[in-house]
Amino acid sequence: MKKIAVLTSGGDSQGMNNAIYGIVQYAKTKNIETHLIFEGFKGLVENKIVPASEVNLKRINNMGGTIIKSARFPEFKNIEVRKKAVKNLQEKGIEAVIVIGGDGSFQGAQKLHELGIKAIGLPGTIDNDIASTSITIGFYTALNNIVEAIERTRDTADSHGRCILVEVMGNSCGDLSLYSGLATSAEVIVTNNRPMSIEEIATIVKEEKTKKDSVLVIVSEKIKKYGSITEMAKQVEELSGVESRGYQLGYLQRGGIPTAMERVNAISLGMEAIKRLDNNESGIVLGWTKSEIYSTQILDALQTENSSIEKDIKKAEFFNKILRA
Amino acid sequence: MKKIAVLTSGGDSQGMNNAIYGIVQYAKTKNIETHLIFEGFKGLVENKIVPASEVNLKRINNMGGTIIKSARFPEFKNIEVRKKAVKNLQEKGIEAVIVIGGDGSFQGAQKLHELGIKAIGLPGTIDNDIASTSITIGFYTALNNIVEAIERTRDTADSHGRCILVEVMGNSCGDLSLYSGLATSAEVIVTNNRPMSIEEIATIVKEEKTKKDSVLVIVSEKIKKYGSITEMAKQVEELSGVESRGYQLGYLQRGGIPTAMERVNAISLGMEAIKRLDNNESGIVLGWTKSEIYSTQILDALQTENSSIEKDIKKAEFFNKILRA
Amino acid sequence: MKKIAVLTSGGDSQGMNNAIYGIVQYAKTKNIETHLIFEGFKGLVENKIVPASEVNLKRINNMGGTIIKSARFPEFKNIEVRKKAVKNLQEKGIEAVIVIGGDGSFQGAQKLHELGIKAIGLPGTIDNDIASTSITIGFYTALNNIVEAIERTRDTADSHGRCILVEVMGNSCGDLSLYSGLATSAEVIVTNNRPMSIEEIATIVKEEKTKKDSVLVIVSEKIKKYGSITEMAKQVEELSGVESRGYQLGYLQRGGIPTAMERVNAISLGMEAIKRLDNNESGIVLGWTKSEIYSTQILDALQTENSSIEKDIKKAEFFNKILRA
Amino acid sequence: MKKIAVLTSGGDSQGMNNAIYGIVQYAKTKNIETHLIFEGFKGLVENKIVPASEVNLKRINNMGGTIIKSARFPEFKNIEVRKKAVKNLQEKGIEAVIVIGGDGSFQGAQKLHELGIKAIGLPGTIDNDIASTSITIGFYTALNNIVEAIERTRDTADSHGRCILVEVMGNSCGDLSLYSGLATSAEVIVTNNRPMSIEEIATIVKEEKTKKDSVLVIVSEKIKKYGSITEMAKQVEELSGVESRGYQLGYLQRGGIPTAMERVNAISLGMEAIKRLDNNESGIVLGWTKSEIYSTQILDALQTENSSIEKDIKKAEFFNKILRA
Repeated sequence: MKKIAVLTSGGDSQGMNNAIYGIVQYAKTKNIETHLIFEGFKGLVENKIVPASEVNLKRINNMGGTIIKSARFPEFKNIEVRKKAVKNLQEKGIEAVIVIGGDGSFQGAQKLHELGIKAIGLPGTIDNDIASTSITIGFYTALNNIVEAIERTRDTADSHGRCILVEVMGNSCGDLSLYSGLATSAEVIVTNNRPMSIEEIATIVKEEKTKKDSVLVIVSEKIKKYGSITEMAKQVEELSGVESRGYQLGYLQRGGIPTAMERVNAISLGMEAIKRLDNNESGIVLGWTKSEIYSTQILDALQTENSSIEKDIKKAEFFNKILRA
Repeated sequence: MKKIAVLTSGGDSQGMNNAIYGIVQYAKTKNIETHLIFEGFKGLVENKIVPASEVNLKRINNMGGTIIKSARFPEFKNIEVRKKAVKNLQEKGIEAVIVIGGDGSFQGAQKLHELGIKAIGLPGTIDNDIASTSITIGFYTALNNIVEAIERTRDTADSHGRCILVEVMGNSCGDLSLYSGLATSAEVIVTNNRPMSIEEIATIVKEEKTKKDSVLVIVSEKIKKYGSITEMAKQVEELSGVESRGYQLGYLQRGGIPTAMERVNAISLGMEAIKRLDNNESGIVLGWTKSEIYSTQILDALQTENSSIEKDIKKAEFFNKILRA
Repeated sequence: MKKIAVLTSGGDSQGMNNAIYGIVQYAKTKNIETHLIFEGFKGLVENKIVPASEVNLKRINNMGGTIIKSARFPEFKNIEVRKKAVKNLQEKGIEAVIVIGGDGSFQGAQKLHELGIKAIGLPGTIDNDIASTSITIGFYTALNNIVEAIERTRDTADSHGRCILVEVMGNSCGDLSLYSGLATSAEVIVTNNRPMSIEEIATIVKEEKTKKDSVLVIVSEKIKKYGSITEMAKQVEELSGVESRGYQLGYLQRGGIPTAMERVNAISLGMEAIKRLDNNESGIVLGWTKSEIYSTQILDALQTENSSIEKDIKKAEFFNKILRA
Repeated sequence: MKKIAVLTSGGDSQGMNNAIYGIVQYAKTKNIETHLIFEGFKGLVENKIVPASEVNLKRINNMGGTIIKSARFPEFKNIEVRKKAVKNLQEKGIEAVIVIGGDGSFQGAQKLHELGIKAIGLPGTIDNDIASTSITIGFYTALNNIVEAIERTRDTADSHGRCILVEVMGNSCGDLSLYSGLATSAEVIVTNNRPMSIEEIATIVKEEKTKKDSVLVIVSEKIKKYGSITEMAKQVEELSGVESRGYQLGYLQRGGIPTAMERVNAISLGMEAIKRLDNNESGIVLGWTKSEIYSTQILDALQTENSSIEKDIKKAEFFNKILRA
């Protein structure tokens, strides 16, 4: 493997830049040259491909969005269009493409794979709705943004004794709603897969208001049955008698500086993609296994010879190598 | 199980309050009464034990530190002292204690277990140095605080063309150093298990300064060989010829509002502790398995029947129950 | 002056709690007892009046909203209702009320003044729309929240090459729009007093998009002519050919932890209110003069005998007294 | 005026980049070409002068530090060195220099003025120790950083029942200490101009600890009498019997994203500097008058014809012009 490229596709998410950092730095340690494809599959076909060494990547690790941009490009379903993409890559001697995005983007990656370009997908979306990973790139940071925004609005709700209904992103996946609701001690969480009747919600709001200064209802986007979140708030107010306000959190959910663990996870995925390509793998997506809670006898836990010292040393040497690649 | 209690012990960490929230709320759904023990094992012996229902727990989910406080208490090694603790618990009808802290705290938990009080440990420390879990309560947030603080100092380093050496916490574990270094694109990371000679560090600093506006060196606390971080900076400056400044990040690392995932993880551990106690388990610590990167064939990934809908529904119902318990 | 009370009225704003802190602490140094009136003028009439010494004010300086809550209460225009308020105060021996809020709240304060209760108004609103002050309590923090939220959304706009239209609060005052627009390098700012035609906006958007990755349009709330911000975005997209998205920032603007200067300013206003009451003043509102840019000859500036040392000493002594009151 | 230049000198501070933004944008509206001088007076002499149009200034408004860097350069006191600087400017046709920095930097500006180059100083330092302005560029943001860091450490102090002593910057000026202490409800503030004996401090700490979970002592840097902050903490612990910890906040105080008002103020100063130069002024520094609290009769306040509409319109037009210059 001598030359590879990376593109981001679909909705942007925080951490995409960190994945690019991991790719570029680890590739250098393997003497692999990375190219950046701007504007996703569209840019691939339009030949917007630039060596990473010619792009300013300083501070990339604390920037939201994707510095190589993204774009929708349904035309990629057309075989002639795809052949143009392959031609562009081959002319530059690029053997492999890493695609960061969601399921739609992975289809594009598969098509490249089928046309003889090695391709690996990395799960990039705030929605956490990708089956092949427990955590997507962007999910941690989006969740953090949501929690911060909700807590600001709760101040006002408390001061006025109101019910607030907050619509959060997540496509049809409830994770952003569920986890942000738990983290902010919401009173109700309503998701696509487990919606409630407006009467049920109003009853809970009325009941909870007797116990608390304000009531917080988290509502997943794309639940059609309530109308807009503003309309939903009006119905809740009418049925519960509790003054209610509804609003969407909007685009601030998907931007902003990535959290520390977001960065570490995304960099790790980027590095692993290079490792896999270097190992001649293709037609795959990478993901994280689910971390589960387990128990250990206290006596065993305390006697555990900390065998991790050797691992620590290797990690320290590896990280230092990556950082200065 | 009718009555249980919780205490925090050792250094405080962000997320301890969230674990308490998880314990209290889940216990309510099981009709278990939770008591809060103030000031750790010391408070246990001094009978500072209060029903959770009498304490204001509003907004506990976005507060750093531990609202039930912590304290050192070497006297707990004394068997007579421990018997006093058991007596206090028995007089109140408390059958079990959840201990949130590090290895030292777990020893106390084991002693209670041996004296017939059910005991479960939860890993609470920013240092991530507990063998029985991949992630400790506090680690994510501390890492976030460190990254934010380092990036502020990097502005100044860049403006003046300096090398900065930043000492971060972690006890003898290198994780806070290693992950914060990776996340901030540091140039050098020096840990306890893999320290470098001062000459080696200075050589790298000199070399990196030729390529960058500033050089960032992350140094784990408790490495004796360099003297204080200020002294270390002086040596690096002398040997490298690059103007250098050293400083400790200090206590801000272990405080502050927990990140969203910190909260979710800690609440989950708290809930699981109740589940285990309700299941008559004792003498154990809970921890998280390590999340690993794995690959899936793209075609398989795309065909995955999203079997998670049912899981989503259960999660939504469970979370709603917990929040309004 | 022996006993005074404070209430917050109208929309809440960050910094209201800091003003309360300044009132309570400075009053203590003058042996004046402060009472807290919950829920504004409504609480005053319903006798929800509690001595400050009985309320937990710990950490009040870093809390958004108003811990003594607010409420709308048009009934206060009724003279019989006002007499009830005065009776409640007199029965408790409360001689004066400090009212934190906007112009509507000041009318209530004036009515109390006319009925023989000393009354002073403090300007509390994020909108900065009070004529008698250059800066209102809440304005700095709201502006900070807006800037932070906008910059998060700009990441996404840049990644997708979009135009985003962001609706910000401010009632009919353009300051939140104007200052947030300047601080975030927006391309267009549209205010109530200087709206533009949709064609004018679209023309600018089209032109600016040729030069930049994304275009940012700040729009003041309550401009009726464009319809909702979503509708406005559709029109801009149609006319300019640039993909556009519109959304409201919502309630997160008025909540959250106050900035440092917000706190200092609000505490200062609170302290001054006590000073004025102690000086028998009433029927007034307090505000800040506008800070203007002026010039000094460099030679004069450098020779300035720093006469401020004496002032510093006084300030240090005064602050230490307030903090430990 | 056709060509001007700007440099930053001395310690960097947040907001310097915003001042540069104001300069560059306003200059464009006057058809004045701005040059950026890198590394302060050193760069001026070494001819590191670049047209602003050749530098990437995107997102400059939310970056800490100074993108044109700073450097110490005592050699500028040498007349031959200064003549070299003037020659560099004259060869490029640059008629004026805006110097952002502290008193030392203003001396350099005065020297340029005396040699026939128009020169204007802008007060850039976090320390707020410049006599010719009430607020310096950087002060607001540094104060915010300090408050945030202190509140994180207070969590730990509360959890452990400790006294913490925090050393903050400010050179010999007490403002950062005084205002951060007030904003965080510290128990003691110790400044250069009003230090206390260690016994006095310990007595207060002991007394306050009886009333509160933790005690917070803010200490200005550069007070020699206590030794290092760590040593000071030890003395306080010994004398008071309260467990105490001391630490410096360090460089994070002077970096980081500027607050919204910091940006607005610094941009305004930058714009005003251009206006003054365009008006042929030189040998001056710009500053802000102090904002004072004043009172208005409520009846007058409510009747105030909001004459500001015309001003609003002008401001809106001016800001829009600046943003798209």
